[in-house]
Amino acid sequence: MSQPYTPTPRTRLVREADRAVYDRETAYHILDEGFLCHVGFVADGQPFVIPTSYGRKDDCLYIHGSAASRMLRHLKEGLPVCVTVTLLEGLVLARSIFNHSMNYRSVVVLGKATLVDDPAEKIEALRLLSEHIIPGRWADARQPNERELKATSVLRLPIEEFSAKVRQGPVVDDEEDYSFPTWAGVVPLEMKWGPPLDDARLLPNLTAPEYARNYSRRR
Amino acid sequence: MSQPYTPTPRTRLVREADRAVYDRETAYHILDEGFLCHVGFVADGQPFVIPTSYGRKDDCLYIHGSAASRMLRHLKEGLPVCVTVTLLEGLVLARSIFNHSMNYRSVVVLGKATLVDDPAEKIEALRLLSEHIIPGRWADARQPNERELKATSVLRLPIEEFSAKVRQGPVVDDEEDYSFPTWAGVVPLEMKWGPPLDDARLLPNLTAPEYARNYSRRR
Repeated sequence: MSQPYTPTPRTRLVREADRAVYDRETAYHILDEGFLCHVGFVADGQPFVIPTSYGRKDDCLYIHGSAASRMLRHLKEGLPVCVTVTLLEGLVLARSIFNHSMNYRSVVVLGKATLVDDPAEKIEALRLLSEHIIPGRWADARQPNERELKATSVLRLPIEEFSAKVRQGPVVDDEEDYSFPTWAGVVPLEMKWGPPLDDARLLPNLTAPEYARNYSRRR
Repeated sequence: MSQPYTPTPRTRLVREADRAVYDRETAYHILDEGFLCHVGFVADGQPFVIPTSYGRKDDCLYIHGSAASRMLRHLKEGLPVCVTVTLLEGLVLARSIFNHSMNYRSVVVLGKATLVDDPAEKIEALRLLSEHIIPGRWADARQPNERELKATSVLRLPIEEFSAKVRQGPVVDDEEDYSFPTWAGVVPLEMKWGPPLDDARLLPNLTAPEYARNYSRRR
């Protein structure tokens, strides 16, 4: 069920406010369908935006630490981050250049990320990250050992301040442009997952599991 | 031809340095194949990451201003931004969870964005943005009028400080894991553009142009 949520001045959309969605249900559906985010953080006044994967548990995002983790070790109170997930779904070719657009669904989460130190939470977060990307894989693979856990950093970001933006459907042109003699319409985009490619050093008698053969992000 | 480029301390990769690519040719190829970027900027110490489109002309990126443009009006010397473009190409399912990865190509550009004020440069930037996304569309559509130009903001970002990261090919497992009895391989991903959907209010005798029927990002 959708939980009530009031946008803050930082997450209330100003541009194209009609595309804004503030309910958790919609935002979580987008977060659950995607698995690649772009995480933004600041170092010496310079923003950095790094692509990485994520998982969600209830009202919490877990992200792979990567670059941000080096900075985080010095910040007990957490590192301000922005995690953005964008699902692109098509090009909208209007009659006027101005009304050209894209169909997409996106979520922006603002907050302070903290490093996951607790070993039990860390392994559970890694399991969530893995299962978020490809459900079923965690149990089939060789799980992390001590050395690997140490070499991996995971950040926790509570989903408290967020907004979502959704643009779907057909072209919307200005009324006077509908007589302009050009084709208009939508070029739809989908993520197409191909048949899995066996590794060259596969042990005999192993075939690609169902979750790799019929991989899908539909949630 | 590839131009010489030396990474700065801000763009030299620390993690997975073997995936780093610093030549302009590779970076520009990635920038030209993508058209959605995630632009990061800072307001009151909080990073924001917004998806938007971009175009490139020589060593310069043009991006749609969106949220950042409001802040930019007050910053004559430019707004520190990070523009990141990520092309995701597959899931890499290793035998160990730790060696799971993704195939992707990404570019990170750091620098100061400035607002494009000159009317001639602005319309040229808009043409570049449009042609970057869908070559041929600019000439077919109704071009921006004075009011629309005023309502649009475009940012210019010189491509001076950048890095690219490329991970392609098969699974790489630790030697001792090749005997672990699980399937391993790559699930490839491609962006599949569907047949164009005619707008409901299309004028008679108009059919989708070639650039919409056979849309492709291959460059």
